Amino acid sequence: MILDSRPEIKDRLAIIAGSGLLPLHVAEAARRHGENPFIIALANESDRDWSDFENTTLGIGNFKAISSLFRNAGIGRVVLSGAVRRRPDWRDIKPTLKSLARVPSVLRTLLSGGDDAVLKMAIELIETNGARVIGVQDIVPELLATVGPLGGREPGAEDQADIEIAEAAAIALGHLDVGQGAVAVGGRVVALEGPEGTDAMLERVARLKADGRISARRRGVLVKLCKPQQDVRADLPSIGPSTIAHAAAAGLAGVAVEAGRALVLERAELIAAADKAGLFVIGVDRASLRGRS
Amino acid sequence: MILDSRPEIKDRLAIIAGSGLLPLHVAEAARRHGENPFIIALANESDRDWSDFENTTLGIGNFKAISSLFRNAGIGRVVLSGAVRRRPDWRDIKPTLKSLARVPSVLRTLLSGGDDAVLKMAIELIETNGARVIGVQDIVPELLATVGPLGGREPGAEDQADIEIAEAAAIALGHLDVGQGAVAVGGRVVALEGPEGTDAMLERVARLKADGRISARRRGVLVKLCKPQQDVRADLPSIGPSTIAHAAAAGLAGVAVEAGRALVLERAELIAAADKAGLFVIGVDRASLRGRS
Repeated sequence: MILDSRPEIKDRLAIIAGSGLLPLHVAEAARRHGENPFIIALANESDRDWSDFENTTLGIGNFKAISSLFRNAGIGRVVLSGAVRRRPDWRDIKPTLKSLARVPSVLRTLLSGGDDAVLKMAIELIETNGARVIGVQDIVPELLATVGPLGGREPGAEDQADIEIAEAAAIALGHLDVGQGAVAVGGRVVALEGPEGTDAMLERVARLKADGRISARRRGVLVKLCKPQQDVRADLPSIGPSTIAHAAAAGLAGVAVEAGRALVLERAELIAAADKAGLFVIGVDRASLRGRS
Repeated sequence: MILDSRPEIKDRLAIIAGSGLLPLHVAEAARRHGENPFIIALANESDRDWSDFENTTLGIGNFKAISSLFRNAGIGRVVLSGAVRRRPDWRDIKPTLKSLARVPSVLRTLLSGGDDAVLKMAIELIETNGARVIGVQDIVPELLATVGPLGGREPGAEDQADIEIAEAAAIALGHLDVGQGAVAVGGRVVALEGPEGTDAMLERVARLKADGRISARRRGVLVKLCKPQQDVRADLPSIGPSTIAHAAAAGLAGVAVEAGRALVLERAELIAAADKAGLFVIGVDRASLRGRS
């Protein structure tokens, strides 16, 4: 007896798009790789024009709509990309019948969890709807930072010391699920990144130098690392041309990111900006970091 | 044979005064305790009227003048108090002949050390001039925070959880010699204090809430602790009425400080402000913290 065993075609790629340039990069690269991505733009977050793609706009807590969308559009794989700057309010949560029992724990995580906890929950909720969450790097591996300098500059001995000090601080910060970035200037950690984000932290460093609270005679470095415990399918640390502009304004000597676990956006523009400003950009080996974590 | 063995009378108290209210409190309390303090106001830092006291104004790196002042005024004990907002520039350093060989290491510390490293160095330099450095608390023990609530409010269960989370973060931060303060909101660490100071950190938390980056539905707490390795004769964490005002503006539920190793300035005004704003202020037992450090 032969049953109709045609498998349900349910493998379309969806990109859940937060704010910033990253989602558009991912969508375009996915298309180049032969995908036909469906864009789920997050209301109040996504800030790009999606008219070139099949798309819809949804509130971040609208699990009900996401669930039926996955079914109707045959979504089988999901990439989370872009920043989510605002935590959703409980009034935004529109649960499915299946997820109703989990609403209290969802709310608790949204109100109190670190970014890492929130993303873990989002991944779980998506996967209970039958789709697989994959990483941006699975679609666009060319965005991953590689080991070594990206532009024309390399860190000097003093910069190298700052990189190591900021790395140790970033690892401690990641363990606390607070953030991914740290700045060291002249051997001293002067800023740790919280929910304000990297650019705002770099503005703070610029102010500290202008006010004389830290030495303006030492340059310093920004280091961004994956949190030790984070799911690499969401929220990889990233840098872009704006990071370089802010690092230059803070008088830093350069930027180091974790090779293989950080994204470099608009690489050509970023390198041109770094070279012009005289900043190094370097991918550091995570194996050497693990020993110290 | 009887030699003239009259001991040199060299026990006068000097107060090296940085910025803020603390030095004046210490000077007045010292006078109440029968001392005749000599005030060394730090140029560009001290912001009080010292005309009631014998005083002089000196640049922070002027070891030459400090050395002869100690000798001429018979200074035997020194209290460091108040904030030092600006790191001295190398051009400010006026070494004594004796300290000349140490200038390179002094400069390195001033440029690169954490606050803790700089204070350790200052203490050492003073003590090589024959004076003993004592803590503010040795002169004005009544400023030390005690165990338990200071005003009419006490932390609830959720606040207690935030206190413990912020404590753990503050201990990690102290180990890095970055700062003494941390803020947790709804179970999540949202800010770690750097050279910007407590008030600026609390302004950042207020902005994060206003921008929706962290939940404005949870209140949160500020915790200030001594760094695990710091010398308690300098730079004890402190809170004052301004801390309460900033904590209230950030929507926090209250403030916790380390009992026995933190200073409460203008206690009556601080308690009145906290009670009026509905904030708790509590001294937490350091013994319970040590187990976790």
